[in-house]
Amino acid sequence: MEQSPIDKLINDISKLPGLGRRSAQRIALFLLKNKEKNLSPLIESLNLSYNKIIECKTCGNIDLQNPCNICSNTKRDNTTICIVEDVSDLWTFEKIGFYKGLYHILGGSLSAIHGIGTDDLKLNNLISRVEKNNIKEIILALSTTMEGQTTSFVIADKLENFKNLNVTRLAQGIPMGGEVHYLDENTLNTAFQSRKKIT
Amino acid sequence: MEQSPIDKLINDISKLPGLGRRSAQRIALFLLKNKEKNLSPLIESLNLSYNKIIECKTCGNIDLQNPCNICSNTKRDNTTICIVEDVSDLWTFEKIGFYKGLYHILGGSLSAIHGIGTDDLKLNNLISRVEKNNIKEIILALSTTMEGQTTSFVIADKLENFKNLNVTRLAQGIPMGGEVHYLDENTLNTAFQSRKKIT
Repeated sequence: MEQSPIDKLINDISKLPGLGRRSAQRIALFLLKNKEKNLSPLIESLNLSYNKIIECKTCGNIDLQNPCNICSNTKRDNTTICIVEDVSDLWTFEKIGFYKGLYHILGGSLSAIHGIGTDDLKLNNLISRVEKNNIKEIILALSTTMEGQTTSFVIADKLENFKNLNVTRLAQGIPMGGEVHYLDENTLNTAFQSRKKIT
Repeated sequence: MEQSPIDKLINDISKLPGLGRRSAQRIALFLLKNKEKNLSPLIESLNLSYNKIIECKTCGNIDLQNPCNICSNTKRDNTTICIVEDVSDLWTFEKIGFYKGLYHILGGSLSAIHGIGTDDLKLNNLISRVEKNNIKEIILALSTTMEGQTTSFVIADKLENFKNLNVTRLAQGIPMGGEVHYLDENTLNTAFQSRKKIT
């Protein structure tokens, strides 16, 4: 039997990240009970995004233009590239606003469990960016998970041949507002080993 | 400054029930990172729903046809109407499948706080259904919240003039699997007052 449009809609909504069947059902009903007010603007917005938003071929950001507004902004420091896993990480950096260099979005981190190898990440692209441009620093801003750290090491390894390139990573330690007795063993150990002199 | 399509999309998604800004951002990125695989089928599904799904003018159900497949099903008992607050309640009944009568979807329950009065609910429609058809029983299957119970009383009151009509409501008591020491005072009191002889 062919699936009804209602079931199909609930099914398609439940495929979105973080949504289960019950929340998908709730959202579908919300949309269907007032199609003009709720469903119609959403369709319009999705269509607009579908037609307008493209990936930046340089850094992997999503934007209305390629290269994106960050890569094409001449006021930014084009000798520094911050490597992040995902566009949402870039958004976090941009929201705070202290970083003025460029980005490179990997599209995830290496993971044997999820079958993500070096070919699935935008690594070759990164190497050619470093080769073609006068990059002085690569900042690794990946998660401090097992996968993120492995990825950081692999990237650092691949960039070893570039002699005048600094490869750095975000500092690890106690987060602001963190209470020592709630810290996990690894964080406390790292923070202890990397302790700094108070000047 | 005009809102970018990405911000507009995140904004529109965050208006869906149960979603906050962070989950909306996550969903937007999921859709935009792979437009052909994720965004395109969703737009298609929403368009299909927009074009095909209509409200049943008799009971308020949503379906591909008006009257809906329940109202137009001659095998169902058209002398009984079960009154529910929402389409999702109808779905719950239909999923279990023991009920073979018709439905009437109120579209909520009376609520002074949310400004929902008798005119906002499909009550006149209900009265005319009872007048025009040979209805023998109205089953009130509303929530046992303050609002639901008030609504039940108001409906029962409005139906008082129909002499041969039975107005019933779902039994109240201990839910299956309920443990007595976890029950709230009201439930326990109701269950105690409505105790039944074991036969």
